[in-house]
Amino acid sequence: MDIIIDLPEDPNRPAYQRLAEAIRESILAGRFRPGERLPPTRVLATNLSLARNTVLEAYEQLIAEGYLAARHGSGTYVAPDLPDRAFRAESIPSRPASQLEGQPPRLSDFAHRLLADGIPTTIDQETQTPSNFEFRYGTPSLDEFPLDAWRTLTKRVLDYPPTELLGYGPTEGLPQLRQALARYLQRSRGVRCDAGQVLIVNGSQQALDVAARVLVNPGDVVATEDPGYRGARAVFHAVGARIVPVPCDSEGIRVSCIRESARIIYVTPSHQFPTGAVMSAARRLELLALANRTGAVIIEDDYDSEFRYEGRPLAALQGLDEGGRVIYMGTLSKVLLPALRLGYLVAPPALQPSITAAKWLTDRHVALLYQAVLAHFIDEGHFERHLRRMRKVYETRRATMLAAFAEHFGDRATITGTESGMHILVNIAGVADADRFIEEARRNGVGIYSAAPYYAGEPPPGASFLMGYSSVNEDGIRRGIGILARVAG
Amino acid sequence: MDIIIDLPEDPNRPAYQRLAEAIRESILAGRFRPGERLPPTRVLATNLSLARNTVLEAYEQLIAEGYLAARHGSGTYVAPDLPDRAFRAESIPSRPASQLEGQPPRLSDFAHRLLADGIPTTIDQETQTPSNFEFRYGTPSLDEFPLDAWRTLTKRVLDYPPTELLGYGPTEGLPQLRQALARYLQRSRGVRCDAGQVLIVNGSQQALDVAARVLVNPGDVVATEDPGYRGARAVFHAVGARIVPVPCDSEGIRVSCIRESARIIYVTPSHQFPTGAVMSAARRLELLALANRTGAVIIEDDYDSEFRYEGRPLAALQGLDEGGRVIYMGTLSKVLLPALRLGYLVAPPALQPSITAAKWLTDRHVALLYQAVLAHFIDEGHFERHLRRMRKVYETRRATMLAAFAEHFGDRATITGTESGMHILVNIAGVADADRFIEEARRNGVGIYSAAPYYAGEPPPGASFLMGYSSVNEDGIRRGIGILARVAG
Repeated sequence: MDIIIDLPEDPNRPAYQRLAEAIRESILAGRFRPGERLPPTRVLATNLSLARNTVLEAYEQLIAEGYLAARHGSGTYVAPDLPDRAFRAESIPSRPASQLEGQPPRLSDFAHRLLADGIPTTIDQETQTPSNFEFRYGTPSLDEFPLDAWRTLTKRVLDYPPTELLGYGPTEGLPQLRQALARYLQRSRGVRCDAGQVLIVNGSQQALDVAARVLVNPGDVVATEDPGYRGARAVFHAVGARIVPVPCDSEGIRVSCIRESARIIYVTPSHQFPTGAVMSAARRLELLALANRTGAVIIEDDYDSEFRYEGRPLAALQGLDEGGRVIYMGTLSKVLLPALRLGYLVAPPALQPSITAAKWLTDRHVALLYQAVLAHFIDEGHFERHLRRMRKVYETRRATMLAAFAEHFGDRATITGTESGMHILVNIAGVADADRFIEEARRNGVGIYSAAPYYAGEPPPGASFLMGYSSVNEDGIRRGIGILARVAG
Repeated sequence: MDIIIDLPEDPNRPAYQRLAEAIRESILAGRFRPGERLPPTRVLATNLSLARNTVLEAYEQLIAEGYLAARHGSGTYVAPDLPDRAFRAESIPSRPASQLEGQPPRLSDFAHRLLADGIPTTIDQETQTPSNFEFRYGTPSLDEFPLDAWRTLTKRVLDYPPTELLGYGPTEGLPQLRQALARYLQRSRGVRCDAGQVLIVNGSQQALDVAARVLVNPGDVVATEDPGYRGARAVFHAVGARIVPVPCDSEGIRVSCIRESARIIYVTPSHQFPTGAVMSAARRLELLALANRTGAVIIEDDYDSEFRYEGRPLAALQGLDEGGRVIYMGTLSKVLLPALRLGYLVAPPALQPSITAAKWLTDRHVALLYQAVLAHFIDEGHFERHLRRMRKVYETRRATMLAAFAEHFGDRATITGTESGMHILVNIAGVADADRFIEEARRNGVGIYSAAPYYAGEPPPGASFLMGYSSVNEDGIRRGIGILARVAG
């Protein structure tokens, strides 16, 4: 018997596995035929310089897999009942062929829309290597996170975790966290809800996705702010919505421009993204009245309203909703850490069953230990203490940034969206080519980001940038903007 | 001026916020009219027995919100430019009205399908209060989790976390975890992949959902095993698939019964759920050949193949795939803890871009700290050590369960699916009403679960139960099955 067995080299895998693989290949390639007897283990072991046990184990494995059959007292054979075509070598190309001649898998319409949008690499700054002075937006100051408190609470949870924190958990989230968030949202955001309405999700991106799935049929009209958050637009587009961008002004979305046919209206009333406009009370009432008249659902994305520097924090739009038309969502990515992937959604009662079911379908529930740690973190006051501290830190950085722009750019820079959040929108006059300006700045160690991708149509004249001040300290802000001024010439 | 201001009672909210809310309500109810002057702060403070500062702060807040306007030197007025209808009290019903007369929000087709399926409350045992002897399936022994090692590694990660673990992370998962899992899957499961193909997801439920979204258009035929896992069927049904259940026998799914029109074939080849059948080599090759011929995609859910007691662990079907037709998925819920919500998906190259984009759209990425802890846990050998240990624990429990059934039920019980996993399928002859039997068992402190819901059509005659042995120790198994025998009479 001519044995052609190439034992693949791989120090990490036991010899019996490698031998089993080699024999399997030989069977599939037709070198061993159905019913053919294999060499006795002792013979093969000697041939290949392996321990006899290794060969025995390989045979056992292949018997278990159905490739071989043992006949009592008469040795080991290739199983007779493998389908015929397995033994025609030409029917299975040799490895490592990656694709048969067959067509590649067909993608769904959802997948095609998703790929057309170019997610995720182009949508955000997440893929950029940070510059020395990195004016990212949408990320909090990672250095200031109260890691000590988080570590202590994590240890406490892990020291004697109750069984409920180890198995499958409730889809809606841990009761103690829903309670803590409900209290916080009532107190600080004027959200009208009880703990039973709070759904814990993996960041507000999941809140958006779940809401879009239970509300949008392909072809439905979704009104979005223009300029507006692309991550939301992408979600609605992917589920097949007809997106209708609606212009914004200094009071937020222009409600009079929203079509009556819109089934969903996506807004960021507390701090319009990216312009920073705060939706006026008049607009809020007008928007709610529209939704009540047409039956539309308003999605309120309250992504960073915790940081407000002028006036008191504005209550959420949801708090004014009498018609059960507002889905409210927020995230802890801007206040604590993006890495935690924790967010929340408050749905009107009529939508709760389907949204909860969608969350189950998607991933059952959010990981439990983080939820428990966060509940303690809020209940023991760390959360609001951190918020107060960060409000001061960001307020100082914001003031420094405004002063630096005034000093270096004077009237050339038009700045909006200064009242709250962690970024401002800056338009610099006389910059002909925004992309070149950004590249040139980056070559000089300053990371800035164009606002142009957030406009559905033509961006405004000049060059508009989102300037985040959360990740750079005051000295860095002064120096970075000084460099920008030299680049602008 | 007649001031009707009811200050809501709530010891948790500052007085200025409660006052602001009360004034806002009064404006919305038409008790204060546009342009009307508010009482001077000093007067209102005296009237309501509040500090003057409290009233000042409330006014400031309402000015910020646009409800009030301050005229320099002449006091505070209700803003004149609120939309007229806001002031007609009858247009906004008094609180706590929950719904306007308008129609409730319209749900998508997806939501309707989801609700029709009755997810999540009826699908699993997650909502049951545990009995004394709780023969749950699909949950590992929570007591045996190596909490010490996990705690130590968590502390190490939290002591000096690199910045990459705090901000937004890569959609695909942490490189070190993808690497660790790729090595493990190659070595132990015969999966052919490199780290670049491994996507980290929130448990295998998310793997299923993401795969279904990028592959299924409404009306597409999806072949599922019958009996089979309902969580998968629900995912395909929700995205609009036409589900065609395919009968299974002792070699797994009957490939000859799969329609050529099936675009997706969902299988659990290593341990068919719930029967426990292991797909034979012949069937595996037949299934791959079918997919290569028709262009179907095979979804291989390898949910608990780590625990195999007879024969060697079988290699994954994916390892035989030459045509790029298999999406492989697995979970750490059965091996470590469900609470961690960690799973993985290995896609053929042609499907990676859309699956990664879908993961981004869904929730950007899995929380980072758990990923880092798990990577260490695998790299330092804790993972495979735990696996080896649990294999022995479960093997003993399994043997105890089989012996107990033999002793108490003899020929009345037909048992299948004993080779691997954490549960067996037991059919007890002569039980007329399975549901009553289950109720009666639960009243006697024994939690067992019917297999009937996993059949698309009629379940087999007699009463079939899924008996998990992971959560009960040997003594409990003996006692629990003794009680069952008395209940069976």
